[in-house]
Amino acid sequence: MSSNVAPATLPALQAPVRAGLDRVQKELRRIVEADFELIRDVNSHLLRMQGKLFRPTILLLADQATGGPRPRAVTHAAVVELIHLATLVHDDSVDHSVLRRGMPTINALFSHQISVIMGDYLYSRAVVELVRLGDMEPLRVLGRVTNEMTVGEMRQLLAHDRMSFTEEQYDLLIRSKTASLLSGAAEVGGLEALPEQRAALRRFGDALGMVFQIVDDLLDYTEEAAVLGKPSGSDLREHKLTLPLIAALPRMSDTERRAVERLLYAQDPTDDEIARVIDAVAVAGGLEYARARAQQLGEQADAELDHLPPSPARDALRASISYVLDRRR
Amino acid sequence: MSSNVAPATLPALQAPVRAGLDRVQKELRRIVEADFELIRDVNSHLLRMQGKLFRPTILLLADQATGGPRPRAVTHAAVVELIHLATLVHDDSVDHSVLRRGMPTINALFSHQISVIMGDYLYSRAVVELVRLGDMEPLRVLGRVTNEMTVGEMRQLLAHDRMSFTEEQYDLLIRSKTASLLSGAAEVGGLEALPEQRAALRRFGDALGMVFQIVDDLLDYTEEAAVLGKPSGSDLREHKLTLPLIAALPRMSDTERRAVERLLYAQDPTDDEIARVIDAVAVAGGLEYARARAQQLGEQADAELDHLPPSPARDALRASISYVLDRRR
Repeated sequence: MSSNVAPATLPALQAPVRAGLDRVQKELRRIVEADFELIRDVNSHLLRMQGKLFRPTILLLADQATGGPRPRAVTHAAVVELIHLATLVHDDSVDHSVLRRGMPTINALFSHQISVIMGDYLYSRAVVELVRLGDMEPLRVLGRVTNEMTVGEMRQLLAHDRMSFTEEQYDLLIRSKTASLLSGAAEVGGLEALPEQRAALRRFGDALGMVFQIVDDLLDYTEEAAVLGKPSGSDLREHKLTLPLIAALPRMSDTERRAVERLLYAQDPTDDEIARVIDAVAVAGGLEYARARAQQLGEQADAELDHLPPSPARDALRASISYVLDRRR
Repeated sequence: MSSNVAPATLPALQAPVRAGLDRVQKELRRIVEADFELIRDVNSHLLRMQGKLFRPTILLLADQATGGPRPRAVTHAAVVELIHLATLVHDDSVDHSVLRRGMPTINALFSHQISVIMGDYLYSRAVVELVRLGDMEPLRVLGRVTNEMTVGEMRQLLAHDRMSFTEEQYDLLIRSKTASLLSGAAEVGGLEALPEQRAALRRFGDALGMVFQIVDDLLDYTEEAAVLGKPSGSDLREHKLTLPLIAALPRMSDTERRAVERLLYAQDPTDDEIARVIDAVAVAGGLEYARARAQQLGEQADAELDHLPPSPARDALRASISYVLDRRR
């Protein structure tokens, strides 16, 4: 990877677009505003739950690296974050999750009903906002992306309880579930760039998004949970097959494979069962395999950036790859 | 109301746009098509559940009454039906309904998870399709409408368990929940008409939609359920306040009002409790009041059609008002 990169911390890579990101927060508040108390209550909880604005960061950097800042990029970035929030609200509702970023989810704090309706509210607000801007291209990109994400959610259901879930299916899953929105964010940031730059940004976002999800899935096997002092293995607990296990399975002994199978069908797997499978995955090289895959996709993402002219924003886009590769949750 | 109306049966009012409606069915199948087995399975169940295509009918009639048929109207009509289907899928999921039009709902037949994801899939397909047509106006109208419907769903939550729910709140609720999509259908049908015709169609659809919902709510008090031989009172069973009860409450005795209150807070109201409140609503004139309100809104809808030039399609739009007023479910 190029050595001409900024240090891979979030504040460093957000530095070139710091002013824009502050305006994204304000735009987000303006867009979701409602003349209805219950919606206002849910919104204010949602805005408190807000994450690192990683997708808006990528969009604004892509805009800046291709001749920006353009005035509309801030609104586009807010809309992308809004779509992300809508997705999280429905995902948490589908998964019956109770916590997100250490805070209660909408379904936990309000209700399942309110989560479903609120996700629809946020998503339709995003469409209304893009229509207001009067430009068809962001609608084209983000409409397609949103549809892909729903297909990804369907694929996710198939990644449960199936020893036969393949790496190819996993790739399709993470591409539609996670990479599509980052790809859309990068592409929308480059909408007014030259066609080959726009296409390179789309591919960059796609590869970066796949790295993002693979690292996320790896962390579930490696990152020590604060309380337990050992990996939480929550994907395994929920019977989700991710890359480390998929890669390890063919290299496991029959005994180990049977332990995996038992776990995938156990109503409530014990911590011991989970710890044993985590060890077996590590011994069979599943973690190394997933790590190498992420590294290789990171290099692909990096190579795409050669299509853009040199700039601090491009350096920050490069740094975002290391940031995603190195993150510890 | 004008006497120059076609007989108010569905086939009669659909006659001027019969060919278009057949193409709507095909368009609908094309638009939802997916390269993914689970989605195909859900789709084919959904398409079997399909109703009377009432919203597409209104859209195609509005198109025809203002200079159509225009080639895009069929796709617009399919998209409006798609948005309607997406809403039903999420509503059934939110309400945990098990039956819709005598068939199992998606949440009953598949799962709650699949309903939430599938509603999102259908809605995002609608956006993608409108983007493909490349015209911003239908996106503007239907984006706004979809957002209004989510606000209507939120208002619906407030119509539960509240003796204090007012007629004004009820109007806001049914306007956003039901009338908005019919209003959008009529307006999109008239997108290329003169501005005053387009506005008249929007107001026509709004009034027609309110009639539609008031009649629906009345039927819950009057229509004998097949098995019971008496009104099902399912809204009351679900603690929903609708116009007949809202209008009757101020004219009830204290004893009757207390019976309503008990019912609204009863976990599982008995058939007797429900029958008693239904009687009290009738005696206090709640049914007459709601019926008169529907009649008056029907006249408003009818008057809006005077803005359109005479045509068989306009006659059918007039007939649709009687059809909605007279329907017995």
